[in-house]
Parts: sequence; C-alpha cells; structure tokens
Amino acid sequence: MNTVSGKRAARMGARQIYETLRDQIVEQVYGVDGLLPSSRALAGELGVSRTTVTVAYEQLAAEGFIETRHGARPRVARTVVERGRPRGVSKPSARNRRLSNFGERLRRNPPRWTEPPGDLVANFRYGDLSPSDFPVLAWKKAVVATLSRRPVRLAYDDPCGSLRLRTALQGYLWRSRSVRCDVDQIVVVNGSQQGLDICARMLLDAGDRFVMEDPGYLMAKHAFSATGAVAVPVAVDRDGLETEQLATIEARLAYVTPSHQYPLGGVLPIGRRHQLLAWARRFDAYVIEDDYDSEYRYDTKPVPPLHALEGSGNVVYLGTISKTLSPTLRIGYLVVPPGMQSAFGAAKQIMDRHSPQVGQEALATILESGAYERHVRRVRRRNAERRQALLDALRRRFGGKVRIDGADAGLHVVVWFDDLPQGCEEALIRLARSKGVGVYPVSVLFDRRRQGRRPRPEVVGLVMGFAALEAGQIERGCKLLAQAVDEVGHRRIR
Amino acid sequence: MNTVSGKRAARMGARQIYETLRDQIVEQVYGVDGLLPSSRALAGELGVSRTTVTVAYEQLAAEGFIETRHGARPRVARTVVERGRPRGVSKPSARNRRLSNFGERLRRNPPRWTEPPGDLVANFRYGDLSPSDFPVLAWKKAVVATLSRRPVRLAYDDPCGSLRLRTALQGYLWRSRSVRCDVDQIVVVNGSQQGLDICARMLLDAGDRFVMEDPGYLMAKHAFSATGAVAVPVAVDRDGLETEQLATIEARLAYVTPSHQYPLGGVLPIGRRHQLLAWARRFDAYVIEDDYDSEYRYDTKPVPPLHALEGSGNVVYLGTISKTLSPTLRIGYLVVPPGMQSAFGAAKQIMDRHSPQVGQEALATILESGAYERHVRRVRRRNAERRQALLDALRRRFGGKVRIDGADAGLHVVVWFDDLPQGCEEALIRLARSKGVGVYPVSVLFDRRRQGRRPRPEVVGLVMGFAALEAGQIERGCKLLAQAVDEVGHRRIR
Repeated sequence: MNTVSGKRAARMGARQIYETLRDQIVEQVYGVDGLLPSSRALAGELGVSRTTVTVAYEQLAAEGFIETRHGARPRVARTVVERGRPRGVSKPSARNRRLSNFGERLRRNPPRWTEPPGDLVANFRYGDLSPSDFPVLAWKKAVVATLSRRPVRLAYDDPCGSLRLRTALQGYLWRSRSVRCDVDQIVVVNGSQQGLDICARMLLDAGDRFVMEDPGYLMAKHAFSATGAVAVPVAVDRDGLETEQLATIEARLAYVTPSHQYPLGGVLPIGRRHQLLAWARRFDAYVIEDDYDSEYRYDTKPVPPLHALEGSGNVVYLGTISKTLSPTLRIGYLVVPPGMQSAFGAAKQIMDRHSPQVGQEALATILESGAYERHVRRVRRRNAERRQALLDALRRRFGGKVRIDGADAGLHVVVWFDDLPQGCEEALIRLARSKGVGVYPVSVLFDRRRQGRRPRPEVVGLVMGFAALEAGQIERGCKLLAQAVDEVGHRRIR
Repeated sequence: MNTVSGKRAARMGARQIYETLRDQIVEQVYGVDGLLPSSRALAGELGVSRTTVTVAYEQLAAEGFIETRHGARPRVARTVVERGRPRGVSKPSARNRRLSNFGERLRRNPPRWTEPPGDLVANFRYGDLSPSDFPVLAWKKAVVATLSRRPVRLAYDDPCGSLRLRTALQGYLWRSRSVRCDVDQIVVVNGSQQGLDICARMLLDAGDRFVMEDPGYLMAKHAFSATGAVAVPVAVDRDGLETEQLATIEARLAYVTPSHQYPLGGVLPIGRRHQLLAWARRFDAYVIEDDYDSEYRYDTKPVPPLHALEGSGNVVYLGTISKTLSPTLRIGYLVVPPGMQSAFGAAKQIMDRHSPQVGQEALATILESGAYERHVRRVRRRNAERRQALLDALRRRFGGKVRIDGADAGLHVVVWFDDLPQGCEEALIRLARSKGVGVYPVSVLFDRRRQGRRPRPEVVGLVMGFAALEAGQIERGCKLLAQAVDEVGHRRIR
C-alpha cells in the first residue's frame, strides 16, 4: 500500500519539498527552536506556488513531523526533536517502497527541478534560452522534409544514432572545434545529460572516485554520484581546474569544462591541459570533457578542446545543441575514444534503443546546408549584445561593488557582491524574487566537504544567465536587484 | 592507446561480429576443427554486407585469432586452440579498456542490432511497421502547430513529461484500457525500452533475481541483466506465464506481457493474474506489465490489464506508441504505483532531463483531438488484413505441416514447423535469406539454462512479424519460405 497518499501531493514540487523537509527534520537540521519558514517565504524562495508548499506542510503535519498553527510559522513536532527518528521511519527516505541502491541514492539526494515562475520581470536562470532566437522556420522546414521522406520501413535505427547526423557532426566538429574524429566514435544522445549518464554507467562503480571541479556542474555530479561513486572535489581558480592537485588523487574519471569552466568561467591553460591528460594516462582514468557552450566566445579566440590535443586517448568529448538551438530538443553527442563506440552503443541500446529519429534528421539537414553555422553566428551576436547589456547594467547599478567572473564566453556570468557576506544570500534571493527578479546562488555549486585552502565563498555570489532575456529586461532586472541589494545591506547595518 | 585499431572496423556491425567471434574462439566454441563460416554465409545469416564480415575477419587474423587462406573458410589459429586464451587476453572482452561492472556485463552480453537488409522480397522481422500506415499529415500538422506556438522561454521541462501529454494519456488509458491512474503516476519515457531501463535501475541491484517469461522479450532481459541481477526463467504455455511455478520463487520483480505474451501469444487468464499479484504482494516484489501491443486484438475482446485489477499496487504499467505510430519516435510511458513518481522522475532527470518536447506535444495534440484513436482503429483494420493474408498464405503453402501460435492479437505469429527438427533452424534461415525472405527464430527467445519440464523447442519455430508488409509481399514471402522449407527437408532426407 502506498503510504504518503491521504492528501496526495498536488505535483512533483510538493513531494520533493515534503521529502526534503522531512529528511531535514529527521536529521535535525532545524535545531531546537524548530521553526520552519512560512509557506509564503518558502514558496518565494523555491519559486513555486504557495499552494505547493502548503500541500507539503499539510502532509508533514498529517504524519506528525510538524505542528501548524494558523498565522504562525510551522514548528517541528516536539516528539520528533526529542526522540530523533519517529517510529516507522527506518531510513531518511522513510516509509516509501523498497528501491535499488541506485533508487535509494536518488531518493536521498534527488536532483532539483522547479517549474520556472511565469510572472517575473527578469529571470536570470542559467540554461534557459529565448524563443525569439530559435530558428523556427529553418527547423520547421527540416522537420517537414524529414517527415515527408518516406523510408522503406519504420524500424529501430542504429543505437549510435543516424549515420547521416553523425557524418554531419564529424564535419562540424572538425570545422568548428578542430576535433578530428571518426563517425565510428560518435554516439548521439538525448542531450548532454544522457551523455553524462552513459559515461557514469559505463565507467563508474559504487565506491569508485571521480574528480569534480569545485565549484562545478551539479547535474554531472548527480549522474556520477547516482552510481555510488564518490566525488573528489578539486578547486578551480581563474584558470579552471587546479590540475597540480591531481598528482596524489587516484580516480576513475575527471569531469571538466576546460573551454569555459562552469560556473566560474576560467579557460584551462595549455600547461594544465597537458597535466590533466598525463594524470589520466597515469591512472588509466577517463576525462569527460563537457564542451557545453564553446560556441559563445566574445573577446577571445576559441580554444581547441582537450580532445584535439596529442595524448587525449582517454578523453570522452561531450557536445550539445541545448545552448545553440534549444534545451527542449534533447540532442547531444559523445565522441568516445576509438574502439569504444560499440560498448557505448550497447549501453544506449538497452537504455532507449536510439534517440528519436526526426530530430536527428532535422539537425543533420541544417548542419549539411550550413544553416546551423549561420544560426550559431547569429545567436552569438545576439548573446554578445545581451552580455554587454548585462555588464553595462551591472556597472551602472553596482560600480565597483561587484566583481564579475567568466564574462569572456558563454551565456552566464558570476557576480560577487563583496559587501554582502554569505549569510545574506538567502535573504537577497528571496527579496529579489519578491521584486520580480529570479537570481540563483553560486554557493550551491560548491562541494560542502572540500577541505581545500580556499573556503566556500565568503560573500554572496550569483550565477546570472542572460540568454533568455532581452536588453530591457536585463536593465530592469539589474535595477530591481540593486534595490534588493541595498535593502539587504541596510538591514545588515541596522 | 587503443588496441583494436590498426584496421579499424568499418562500423558497429563489424566490431560486434569481431567481438562475438573472438569471445567464441577464446571459449572454444568452434571445437578442434576450428572452421568458421565463410564470409558470404555469415553475412547472409547476420543480414550484413560481406565487407562487414570481412573487416571483422581481417581484424581477427591481424590479432592472431584466426588463419585465413584465399578461397577457404577461416580457421581458428592452432595456437589459440592449443593454449586456450592467448597472451594478453585476460577477460573474454579482451584488450579493451577498463569499464564499470555494468559496462563489462554489456560487453560480455551485448544486445544485438543489425541494419535491416534493404533488398529482401519480404522481411518478417517483428517490430517494424509500414511507413504507409504512418499518419504523416496529422503528425506533420501537430508538429508544425507545436513549433509555431512560441513559449515564454526555452527551458528544461518537468522530468516526468509534458503535463499536457500526461493529462491526455490519463484519459486515453481510462477510455481504452480501463487503467485508472492519476497524472501524478505517469512518467513519459523514450519508448518502452527506457521504461524498462528505469525500472531495472530503480528496482534491481546486482545479485537480485527477476522473473522472466520463458520464452520472452530479449531486450527486457538485457535491461534487467545489465544491472547484474539474475533472470529466473519461468515457462509459459498457451495461457501465458505458468504462475503456479512462482510459489517457491523469491524475486524482486517479474516482467510479464499478460495481454499478449511475447512471443507465444497467450492471454493470461484471470486466475493466473490474481496468482501473480498475490505473489508480488507476498514477496514485496514488483510486476512490470508490458502492454506493448494491446491495441491489436482481432477475434477476441480486449483484456483489461493487470493494472486495472484490485490489489495491483505493485504493478508498473508500461505503454508505447512504437506499435501504433512508429518505433522511431521513441515515446512511451510508465504508470507507476502511487507515490513513486518523484523517485522515477528523479531517475529520468539524471538520465536525460526529460523526453524531447516536440514529440510529446504532437502526441498530446492528436490524443486530444481524437485523431490518435481514429488512427489506431484504421491501423488495426489494416493489420487484421495483413494477419489474414499471412494466415491464408501459411495455410495454402504449408497446410497441416505448421502450427500457429498467438494469432488472436498483436503484430506477429509464431509458426512451428513440426517436420523440421531444431537442428535445421540455421540452415532454413540462411536459405530463406538467400531467396530474399527474412525470417527469425523463436529459439533465441528461450532461456538456455531453464531446467523445466519442457525442453527448448524440438522443432523449428519462427517469429513472423507482418506489420511492415503488404499482402502481396506476405504471399510471395510465404511462397519462397515454402521452397526453402522443402529444400531443407529434402537435404535432411538424403
């Protein structure tokens, strides 16, 4: 029988909130006073409706984890605080059904997904793109052409992807990224996330170690951690991963973003690149090179990926169209070391047979015609304008009070507010949201366990994505953000 | 350094052939005489080009596994036969790179994929559909409407799938399958294969046991086995899974096709359904109900799925559009037990974020308008005609010499040739292929290890899919098959 029904969570958001809070309560995150945020405050913080939070709170109350009183913030039930885990809760994941180890790991540490709030003046969430940039006509034409071309039979395709698309990608990679590979090394996947997941499954076992940039890309860490492998965080500085720290680290793989470190924006210098590749050869480890936004370089020349260097036989290269066309199309590609395609193809086949055919053929069409590269040049210009609008607005609103990282390339910058200590982060984000501005902390991208020479950031830092916004929204958003920063600063002084 | 380069395999097929043969050679499958099939024969059997086989053979020769002489069949190198495993081959997967346990399992036991040969008179491969059945106009219209509707921003969607599609599916499942579920139980996946893979990962650990119908669906077994879990084959008879055998079997899950057992076609009677559900409750096990072709029932009434019965709280229901629209679209859906959506959604999120949006929205559109159900009625009629053409042709060509299983429903039948002992299977398939007919053995769907009361089939049995063929092709194909059967029969007598 299902246990958490009764009042069923209205949607995924409510359940995730419920589970997160329940685990936090059981782990006594809320201390002795045990006050939880008000439903309004939590809804604002998470960017969900207040109803969603209320459903989660009602479920927690129904199960005896919290006490609610009208008009007051909910409080952890005394019995829970005193007795530790309530009866029947044998694991943090509580009274749910038995899952595999993989399932339990995901239940303990689920990736987050929240629907983007629709009513904001400016949402600086990274990863989103503007629909006005999408080449609707060209894509529509390519899709219709594909659907009109009647094949001999409708049958499962090659697990590694459409031969036509792989051939087109091979040329594109060589022209645009100096990546010389064979069609037999390319595996088409459903966005870079599936590429990461295939690498995780094919290369990592429970207990293995993998190197993560710190701070780094959370969804990669989620995919690798879900195997039961353990992240070894290695610091990044303005030049990307501090590869000299690798010398003593034995691990199965390293996940890196050498062209534009996510989130801090460093470009890995050639010396560090060689150091990284030498490390991989020494430990027979793999390097997963996520080239997620290499199409966007503004003031500097493009840097050839690791994959283009000598001695890169251990590198798995990962590309995506989520930053150039749309994250909703779910198309990406792996370039695997020679001889490994059949193993990766076998994984792809048991995972989902192959990627959907129409999208692959449409992409092949616009790659072959040159329309894709023309499109990339166009959106590069547009995003250069958005970036300039953001840098200008930040300068105008904050002057010397902010430091900006990673503005040379990509679709986001990191903005450090040197006058605001880390403790203000939550208040700033909540206040900004109440003014209609969505901003997101860089702090969550840091590994909590790292005992490095540098601590987690001491001041508030925000990852500000700009690719979904027009110049006016960027300007208005920065103005409102400046008001929020002021208010938080004043509160602190009082 | 990559080890199997030198003469790189021209494509996946060659590598798979190479690896399979190499493992067979190392395991001394070819005995003392050590003769391999000629490249022509093997190419015919596998349905690949002769060049592909030649590439594989050249690689094996270059590595010293076989000796080739012009005009003669290749022979296992004496040194390999005498010394057992050659130096440097420490595992069956030989000199490849180190992979995870998952990767090694896939390397040892890869799923098969071969490109459908284009030049056949009639290819009875199951799973393929006729492009003439695809509703090109309706789908095109739905896709174009989706692409023309500009969203607020391009952003990652709900991992569980488009809310609009899930809502449309909820209604469809209730109307057409008596499955009453909530939108919060539906997870949209990339075809049923990804649904199987998510179940495998979420529910099975290495060493766990899972029940497989024997004979049964190989790609489900591949997905479950890849976790390291162990298949427990349970026999099927004309009424599907012999559930009375479950009493003593403790396992984590059972994979079943109760509406139309694949491949033998039995419909699980109500008594067995209750027995199966009771077993699942007793052992806290899951039942994966693959309702892969329920849209196609001809002489009999549709059977409501297990999911619609009382006490089915442990059932994960799996549906697909691969048999009604196209296998190339890669859209399927899971209905998970209440309360489990967030866990499955978390898995889907780390696996590939979510399924591609355009296909989901297009499917929602044709479900909402009723076009999908009209289409299903139309293709059901067409496939009823194809089935009748096949049954007529088989009767005309073989009369009482064949028994036919599973013709009440679905898109395939199983044809048993009572006069041809199992040993003729390979010869028949090869001969039929040489005449332009693609036929596929049922024997590979049997578990080799089962020590049941019934042995593996004693006579040749073929799985004959008909959904991709027109009546004329079916007729010509059966005629040529009859010639092949005759020739094989005569050879045997001489």
